[in-house]
Amino acid sequence: MQNAAIITVGNELLNGYAVDTNSSWLAGKLLLASIPVVYSCSVSDDIEEIKEAIQYASGKADIILITGGLGPTDDDLTRNGLAKFLGVELEYHDEIYDKIKKLFKARKYSIPEKNKVQAYLPAGTSEIENTLGTAPGILYENDKKIIAAMPGVPSEMQKMFEESILPKLFSRRRHGDDFFIIRKIKCIGAGESTIAEMLGDLMARDRNPQINCTVSQGIITLHIIARAEDKKSAEKMAAEDVEKLSGILGKLVYGFDEQSLAEVVGQKLSEQKKTLATAESCTGGLIAKMITDIPGSSSYFTGGWVTYNNEAKISQLGVEKGLIEKFGAVSSEVSAAMAAGARQRSGADFAIAVTGIAGPAGGTEQKPVGLVFISIAGPRTLDTEQFLFGPRNRDFIRLRTCQNALNLLRLKLGS
Amino acid sequence: MQNAAIITVGNELLNGYAVDTNSSWLAGKLLLASIPVVYSCSVSDDIEEIKEAIQYASGKADIILITGGLGPTDDDLTRNGLAKFLGVELEYHDEIYDKIKKLFKARKYSIPEKNKVQAYLPAGTSEIENTLGTAPGILYENDKKIIAAMPGVPSEMQKMFEESILPKLFSRRRHGDDFFIIRKIKCIGAGESTIAEMLGDLMARDRNPQINCTVSQGIITLHIIARAEDKKSAEKMAAEDVEKLSGILGKLVYGFDEQSLAEVVGQKLSEQKKTLATAESCTGGLIAKMITDIPGSSSYFTGGWVTYNNEAKISQLGVEKGLIEKFGAVSSEVSAAMAAGARQRSGADFAIAVTGIAGPAGGTEQKPVGLVFISIAGPRTLDTEQFLFGPRNRDFIRLRTCQNALNLLRLKLGS
Repeated sequence: MQNAAIITVGNELLNGYAVDTNSSWLAGKLLLASIPVVYSCSVSDDIEEIKEAIQYASGKADIILITGGLGPTDDDLTRNGLAKFLGVELEYHDEIYDKIKKLFKARKYSIPEKNKVQAYLPAGTSEIENTLGTAPGILYENDKKIIAAMPGVPSEMQKMFEESILPKLFSRRRHGDDFFIIRKIKCIGAGESTIAEMLGDLMARDRNPQINCTVSQGIITLHIIARAEDKKSAEKMAAEDVEKLSGILGKLVYGFDEQSLAEVVGQKLSEQKKTLATAESCTGGLIAKMITDIPGSSSYFTGGWVTYNNEAKISQLGVEKGLIEKFGAVSSEVSAAMAAGARQRSGADFAIAVTGIAGPAGGTEQKPVGLVFISIAGPRTLDTEQFLFGPRNRDFIRLRTCQNALNLLRLKLGS
Repeated sequence: MQNAAIITVGNELLNGYAVDTNSSWLAGKLLLASIPVVYSCSVSDDIEEIKEAIQYASGKADIILITGGLGPTDDDLTRNGLAKFLGVELEYHDEIYDKIKKLFKARKYSIPEKNKVQAYLPAGTSEIENTLGTAPGILYENDKKIIAAMPGVPSEMQKMFEESILPKLFSRRRHGDDFFIIRKIKCIGAGESTIAEMLGDLMARDRNPQINCTVSQGIITLHIIARAEDKKSAEKMAAEDVEKLSGILGKLVYGFDEQSLAEVVGQKLSEQKKTLATAESCTGGLIAKMITDIPGSSSYFTGGWVTYNNEAKISQLGVEKGLIEKFGAVSSEVSAAMAAGARQRSGADFAIAVTGIAGPAGGTEQKPVGLVFISIAGPRTLDTEQFLFGPRNRDFIRLRTCQNALNLLRLKLGS
């Protein structure tokens, strides 16, 4: 079984200016390629540090992926660190410099003298083509190890990895190496521990497929990792588990793999040829934003209102002034009236409305921060639910409100 | 000068399930505390790996911060890894178990047998109190080194670091250690290279204060790091640079330190006692969302429309049907009419309107993906600007549209 280590290079990773997302992206891709990552580290722009990191990683893994430090400036030192680790000199490659010059010419820039350094590679290594930027990658390979240095810019790194590195890693698979197949089940509507309880022994650590659970922003993702000697068996095992778990979890499952809640809701609306409008108070446009994150959403989303103050609720959605005076803007009555008004004024089949107290100010004993009403108006029904997401911060309350609103519509649209 | 290394523990960090944000958060806090981070790594839930990582980090840094692996389950092994590094056994502490039991009682749960393991600490270390969760932190300290193991849950880790670790690090400062003061200048409206050119020698690497530049989602942040033997001098140096750079960059500077564009626009509106409405097409509610991210925005934001289809533009904003037929929904004419309609119907002093093609579909040769019109209607003016943000992805185009819309309003509101 091959395994991998990831080294990210750059002072910005060590002073808190940047969150390293390259490691996580690479680790995810490597897992999909059946290659576990055993170690990752970030080091500063320093030749000795880079060399040492490669040395240490080389004691742990067969595959070493490095990102960053390939630019043209004085603090781009991955070339030098790798050369030092390999115990070789840097060599100038005219054909690489030609490519870089051409790239500058195409962009109608004159090439700065500094960029010449990008045409140097450690002796015995080869160029990995960068089709998006000036920094070529560097590849070192022998029977046992492979070291690939890629640019730190995520888009350039990702393209280079998928086009040039990944095929190479597959070609290096040894006979008998296991295949991993990973499927995801995405859930909303219950906590991690409830779901773990429902699944019981299925989540045992030594089971194959292994089932892991992660939680991010209220969405629970079950990762099914099936491992077998051939790809087909692993795929079958994963598919069987997807079915088994979906059966157990029922309506908690909203989608699979990379699907977002808004995407699933959009698919249902499209299939049923229904349209949707939104009327938002406390979420301030975030529900509409999530819906329109999905390309093609214009075919089912007619539009929305952000009725942030009472006047807007009255004039834009036709909520009665007396209703607001009697029950307050954050009430099930006003929520329902917003949904009914949005549905009627937009002509859409469904309307979502939300009103709540996102905080930090504005809460009272009767109506605390985190109190939210969500209404779904449909052709035959108008339902309102009350939620209490607090006391938490503003972003948390707003996000949970959006997810629950989309989820209520999902359940209303049926399966 | 003290320096630090960060070790994050957890399989989830090595299989791509989770992005490690703890390292970046800690590194930022340490830099603010004048402690540079020289190394960071992620290791799996394995005693030997954890021990080795501490050993390696210990060769590089005086301060070692560990996060993760302190929970009650079988794969929480930071306790054991640290004990192995120190060459000691784990010792049971009744008083810690009492605290954990109390916590469970307060939450009305019965305590699982598993949690007893959290009452064990390596001999010679002490408990760091966790006021938010069950996992106590672990502190090892001698004249030269300090090792602190904290929970992986960001909120628990952050509170523990700020309450218990940071004061300790300050108390360990040696005579003659430098103080760092960090200020940030936030810019929009020019690229990184333009700004670097305007600043010239001020960005020289060996200058004090050092000025670094980072770019995130179209916002350029200049970090001014002033270093001096006493705090006051460092503060003065940083303040002088803030003034100097602001003078050079002029209107490109929208704010300082942690300010967002929406926050600055909101402040200006509040100060001038003006109100704002939005009318969004391609951004689908994201501008309203950004504005309402700011607590208290209800005092100046009346509300907004997400007029995603033509009917909504006509019925909700009063855009003339003929205008859309003649110029198309994505046109300066319709953009201006949306802004005028939103301003008039909301009664707000200002209205922002945007219409554009966010893609991936919908582009033509005349109107490609990325074409966006932004209008600002005010008491005396109605201005429309055309932008071409493509060909880029949907998220990029939508985000840049929002930022430019807010920036146009900022410039309109003056300084």
